[in-house]
Amino acid sequence: MVLPKSKVTISDVAHEAGVSNSAVSYALNGKPGVSSKTRRKVLDVAEHLGWRPNSAAKALSDAKTHNVGLVLTYDTGILSVESYTMELIAGLTTELEKKGYSLLLRSSQSRQQEVAILKEWISAGAVDATLIMNLELGDPRMALFKRHPDMPVLALCDVSIADGLPSLSDDAQSAAHLIVDYLHEIGHRKIARIAGPETLEHTFIRDNAFVEEVAELGLQYSCFHTDYSPDEARASTKRFLQLPERPTAIVYDSDVMALSSLKTIADMGLRIPDDLSVISWNNSFMCEVGLPSITALDRDVVARGRKAAQMMLALIAGDTVRSQREDDSSLIFRQSSGPLRIH
Amino acid sequence: MVLPKSKVTISDVAHEAGVSNSAVSYALNGKPGVSSKTRRKVLDVAEHLGWRPNSAAKALSDAKTHNVGLVLTYDTGILSVESYTMELIAGLTTELEKKGYSLLLRSSQSRQQEVAILKEWISAGAVDATLIMNLELGDPRMALFKRHPDMPVLALCDVSIADGLPSLSDDAQSAAHLIVDYLHEIGHRKIARIAGPETLEHTFIRDNAFVEEVAELGLQYSCFHTDYSPDEARASTKRFLQLPERPTAIVYDSDVMALSSLKTIADMGLRIPDDLSVISWNNSFMCEVGLPSITALDRDVVARGRKAAQMMLALIAGDTVRSQREDDSSLIFRQSSGPLRIH
Repeated sequence: MVLPKSKVTISDVAHEAGVSNSAVSYALNGKPGVSSKTRRKVLDVAEHLGWRPNSAAKALSDAKTHNVGLVLTYDTGILSVESYTMELIAGLTTELEKKGYSLLLRSSQSRQQEVAILKEWISAGAVDATLIMNLELGDPRMALFKRHPDMPVLALCDVSIADGLPSLSDDAQSAAHLIVDYLHEIGHRKIARIAGPETLEHTFIRDNAFVEEVAELGLQYSCFHTDYSPDEARASTKRFLQLPERPTAIVYDSDVMALSSLKTIADMGLRIPDDLSVISWNNSFMCEVGLPSITALDRDVVARGRKAAQMMLALIAGDTVRSQREDDSSLIFRQSSGPLRIH
Repeated sequence: MVLPKSKVTISDVAHEAGVSNSAVSYALNGKPGVSSKTRRKVLDVAEHLGWRPNSAAKALSDAKTHNVGLVLTYDTGILSVESYTMELIAGLTTELEKKGYSLLLRSSQSRQQEVAILKEWISAGAVDATLIMNLELGDPRMALFKRHPDMPVLALCDVSIADGLPSLSDDAQSAAHLIVDYLHEIGHRKIARIAGPETLEHTFIRDNAFVEEVAELGLQYSCFHTDYSPDEARASTKRFLQLPERPTAIVYDSDVMALSSLKTIADMGLRIPDDLSVISWNNSFMCEVGLPSITALDRDVVARGRKAAQMMLALIAGDTVRSQREDDSSLIFRQSSGPLRIH
């Protein structure tokens, strides 16, 4: 890693990047007039050389923007069926509004593009704080913000992997405990889980929590990872149910995956919950109106968004903010789960 | 209406509002330092007197912010179950990103609060364009933007009620035609509709379109208006089904209302679709996985968001933008609708 020297100038960056001074200025200030390729190159070089705005520019950029930034990195197809992001945004904007703050949204199609946007925000001072979510193992965003302690950031991830950044998450261990304990209680001994992508940190955290709970009770357990899509959920469901010793309960990491699989289960001639119990790791209106309705872990995502906004506002105010792991999940019992019937 | 005089100064506004010049300056520039009550008062007075930024400030404010603004005015409970807003945001941010634009989100709990935010944006030049949605009859936002032709705005509403502002909407008449024609074709003669709030312009547009279509075919038709909530949807469903001459098909203005009512219908001993056909005016993942799955009118909301972004970017560029009514709906046939069975 290059040690930042105190007096890296725009000319230094221009020289190193092989572009004009004004191109560097445009790129660093997040203004149009340079191609996105040049912009990315300039930001990378500035980052590498340890460029910092000079004091006049710094004073200007110290003026509050009253914006908090969030980059939505997504596959629009999946996003639109998940209520999580909308509920989070509802909570965030409602709480930010109390202090006259806006939520600045940008979108990206890849992690790399998201990092480029974050670098632009940092160099242009376009936001007063940033929220990052869907953290991955070895996520480049963590490293970026560690190098820029001047930009307040809140990571929506478990404190154990937040690497010192302020974080906010639910308590996966207690959630896994609720689910596994309930299934054990009503007689299930072979439990399967259809999870999200293995690369996401919250999948990893859930994986570990689940394994710990089933081990404690001596249950059989296996897990398939998916990309959260209905198709992969259905395929995984089919694979589980074709096993010679099939599970008697399946826990899905999302409501979309649980609901998508109901028809697959019915098509295989299994009745819910007599032959198979189904549980969704997150609750939604869809779980409530589903036929059968789906037993689900309930978290108040709107409240989580409010809390995240409060923590970011505190960071902006210069307060010390402690990472939080909220043990606020509860299990809502519906038609899709019940005692195992012996045939 | 007061005619704007050309030289209204900040002092004039301060005098009229009974506050200091600096309070006016803070309020007009959207900066903190004044209470929200004072801010609203100043904005109202400035608006009333016809205050305009002076040329120096104007030049500054002519610098592009690269933000497009959207105020989410909502009941968070309803918002979180509707996929519409999230899909719209996905389309908007994806398209805006191509030009390096951000979506600036704020939230309000009332129409009045939304208007205050819009006034703040206009006076502070905080956004380059604004999107307004869920237009109501006699909506104060229309009047506001008519008085500020310098602020590009796109109204997500039918051109017939856009009052000269550029607008984007679907074609309610052709949508109503698709639904009514299909139901008539498969034998239904008594059709009911459970609609959104009567005050929303798009409910009004749909009401008229529906009445026209059923009149043309000589069908019996009646309609209840609701606040879109599951509770009111269920209550209206019950009222319709208890009529001596009950309808044989119900069209719901939203997927949430249709899905919420399935259990009510089953509880009243009616089978879908043998005794009653159910159609949702908008499609969603929930309609697809519902048991029964729900016949629904499909619109590509993500594409609508993209289109809206393109139109706003054109407005910002100073191009002439024509209002558009997109005839892009199609009916997706699923298990919830079918020919009337005679008992």
